[in-house]
This record gives sequence, C-alpha cells and structure tokens, in this order.
Amino acid sequence: MSNAQAMPQLDTEGGQAVAPCCPPLTERPFTAEEAETAARMFKALGDPIRLRLFSAVASHQDGEACVCDISDVGVSQPTVSHHLKKLKEAGLLTSERRGTWVYYRVAPSVLAAMSQLLTATPAA
Amino acid sequence: MSNAQAMPQLDTEGGQAVAPCCPPLTERPFTAEEAETAARMFKALGDPIRLRLFSAVASHQDGEACVCDISDVGVSQPTVSHHLKKLKEAGLLTSERRGTWVYYRVAPSVLAAMSQLLTATPAA
Repeated sequence: MSNAQAMPQLDTEGGQAVAPCCPPLTERPFTAEEAETAARMFKALGDPIRLRLFSAVASHQDGEACVCDISDVGVSQPTVSHHLKKLKEAGLLTSERRGTWVYYRVAPSVLAAMSQLLTATPAA
Repeated sequence: MSNAQAMPQLDTEGGQAVAPCCPPLTERPFTAEEAETAARMFKALGDPIRLRLFSAVASHQDGEACVCDISDVGVSQPTVSHHLKKLKEAGLLTSERRGTWVYYRVAPSVLAAMSQLLTATPAA
C-alpha cells in the first residue's frame, strides 16, 4: 500500500463500508450520524490487542498479512481471528482467502479518513 | 489552539498525561505498552456521544467550552459531565474551573499524537 493518504475512497471487501465520513473534529461539532460512523472506527481500535493486530497488518510486508504472520501478540489464534473479524466488520480491514489462509490488509480509505478527522483546522 | 500539529508535548492539566506514545501504525507492529496507551485514546473516542462532545469542544470558539456551551447532544447535563470526565481521564481534554463553570479544552498534544499514529509511512 504505497499511498494510503491519497483521496479517501470506498474500497472495502466484505466488511461494512467505511465512507470518508466526517470533517476534521476541530471544524464544527459532529452530527449524530457522523459521530456514529467515526466512533465505530475509533472503538474498533480501542482495544490493545486489536490495535496491535491492526498495526501488525498495516506494517507487514506489502501491507498484507495472514493470521499465520501475526500470531505473536500473546493470545490464541482463534482470539486473533476473532479480533481480525471485528476489525473487518468495522471496515478497517479487508480480507481475501488464498488457499489455506485468509489475508488481511488495511482498507485503503481508512487511514486517510481517520487522519483527516484528526487534522487540526485553524482556531475557531 | 492555533497549531495543534506542532511537536507533540505533554501539556495536560489534571487528567492523566498522554505522551506522544507511538510510531505510525504502519511503521512496525506496536508493542504491548504502546498499544495500551494508544488504545486508551481510541477507546475514549469510540462512543458517539463522547465523540460529539469532543468535537464540540475542539471546534468551539477559542478551542474551549464549558458544559453550558455544549449540552445539545441529546443527553442530560449530568451525562454530558460524565462523558467529559471520561475524556479528561483519558487525557484527551484538560479542564479549568472558572467561577461557576468548568471549562474544557483539547489537550494540546492529543490531536498531533493521534494524527501521527495514522500517518501512512512508505509501504513496508
């Protein structure tokens, strides 16, 4: 994944779609709908194990990893699979089965969309 | 708050300190300790009401707001206060009492630290 900061776009596969939902947090108060969408992403990363797995996938070679690559976070492989599924349901990861393994990668729009949320705008 | 993207620094007042904890998520797998710190921030924003309140504070005039300014998110004022306290405990907001009201503002390091987490690094 060479350009995750390119224009956000919908590109999930299987999981719920994550639209580039919201303006920067500092621009104006979020609407209820914007907050629902963005909170789902933040919540998915609000667990240390999930965050380590997400980071492991995001930083793995070619931005892609299977369970077999990232099982060193101190929990069982079924637990790893459970958390990866949660990340996928939140739209943060996409997955593709190839042979025995399911490979995960960060949904292309996600880092850009979340980063945009946290961009500071000029003081109100 | 005119330059939240300046170098992250510890500058909380009252709440737990949030150090600029971690490299970008795409750089290398997070350690357990990094994940604990970063997950706490994400989790605090993983609730729609808290996210709306955080956005309301961050986007309010002069980057500062009291409960009296931001009570239009459809929950009671005690609930607003409860969530603001949670955001403060997570190190995302600082607070200062002035007269009758407690004023909240976004901890200066927070947006920079979280934004840094989500910065894409060149493909691994």
